[in-house]
Amino acid sequence: MADKIAGIIGGMGPEATVDLMERIIHFTSASDDRDHVHCVVDNNPQVPSRIKALLEGGGESPGPCMAEMGRKLEQWGVDFLCIPCNTAHNYYQDVREAVSIPVLNIIELTARALRTLCPQAKKAGILASPAVRLTRLYETPCRALGLEPVYASPVMEQQLLAIIKKIKTGDTSASVYKQYEEVVADVCGQGADVLAIACTELGILHEAHYPCPVVDAADALARAIVGIAKGTLPFPER
Amino acid sequence: MADKIAGIIGGMGPEATVDLMERIIHFTSASDDRDHVHCVVDNNPQVPSRIKALLEGGGESPGPCMAEMGRKLEQWGVDFLCIPCNTAHNYYQDVREAVSIPVLNIIELTARALRTLCPQAKKAGILASPAVRLTRLYETPCRALGLEPVYASPVMEQQLLAIIKKIKTGDTSASVYKQYEEVVADVCGQGADVLAIACTELGILHEAHYPCPVVDAADALARAIVGIAKGTLPFPER
Repeated sequence: MADKIAGIIGGMGPEATVDLMERIIHFTSASDDRDHVHCVVDNNPQVPSRIKALLEGGGESPGPCMAEMGRKLEQWGVDFLCIPCNTAHNYYQDVREAVSIPVLNIIELTARALRTLCPQAKKAGILASPAVRLTRLYETPCRALGLEPVYASPVMEQQLLAIIKKIKTGDTSASVYKQYEEVVADVCGQGADVLAIACTELGILHEAHYPCPVVDAADALARAIVGIAKGTLPFPER
Repeated sequence: MADKIAGIIGGMGPEATVDLMERIIHFTSASDDRDHVHCVVDNNPQVPSRIKALLEGGGESPGPCMAEMGRKLEQWGVDFLCIPCNTAHNYYQDVREAVSIPVLNIIELTARALRTLCPQAKKAGILASPAVRLTRLYETPCRALGLEPVYASPVMEQQLLAIIKKIKTGDTSASVYKQYEEVVADVCGQGADVLAIACTELGILHEAHYPCPVVDAADALARAIVGIAKGTLPFPER
């Protein structure tokens, strides 16, 4: 059976999309070009800001733009879609309703990966922009698997938002790492026994240290893309 | 004036395409997502092998596949195209004739960058697959600027091809670097006073050392993409 083509609704941010593409290559067992996954990528930095729309108020909704990107990728001929941005999953339904092909859900994939990694865990620390907590994206998928999502305390949550904004400018300096590890320690202090890197920007900090088991949402998504494209995972239902 | 959208005919190989996207981000001055370049990328690992078609014989021509990728990207709505693979520029005309938008030429951009970097240079060492020498891709653009292209000796050229194939499997180990630097020394021994990394796979070896000034073709392409997209370079004629 021919490999499936993945469509990537990207640009949120552009670096996180490139990082996902790296992970897809990394998780693919390849002895030549032809073994790799065919991806068609709209790396569109002009998607209206999720943070502005959800946190700062008055911003244009990213939903219609994301839906249009999904439609164009479907027209191009991709077999399934994904969105490498946790926060943008607040608009997941806009994309899903715009197309007739499956759209992978990074939140559900991550919740399942947390449960698989730590079958006994009770609290999942969600490292994400405040918009992910406010939109309660992880609540239903985690609680369905017996996991309670916990978040950074208010001060540390603002620090994490500042870190995400710095990464978007290309800053991954030692001071960003230091500030990030302070946030991680704070979330573990809330009783988390497993952590989710639930922001594709944070996943760019490859060298960060974590005091408990951790699932990177971008890895969960990349593994699903490779498995579905190569046929080692079942093709998802619409 | 609105930014221009870049279309990338990618997958030759997939890692080199991702590497180009990284360079585009790196060369863009950005304080938020919106400042980045909008790229639409067909990262297609199923383009027929350039090495098989040009060196090993009997392989299907990549030209028609590349032309079709260009057509689909033009239909999608990109403003200009590029091909992040030196060897694939043997089929540059196939793409150019298939579309009505400009197609950047990595070979010409690299030759100009060599001349700009070293106005006095006489011999340009071309670090590339043997197919690039055989197809004489660098001859006309280099000689037009008073540069004589020189290449690795036969044994070292085969070593370089083996290195390129290893990189395509994801191998960028210390032994690959060591073998690569042997080839670089050999090319410099041919009298090169400036070097071109004329294979996007070789550009992935970011930590390699060079004994003379060097232009990375992928950088020359990435800088042109950013300049054209952001309007700091003139939009190329068709």
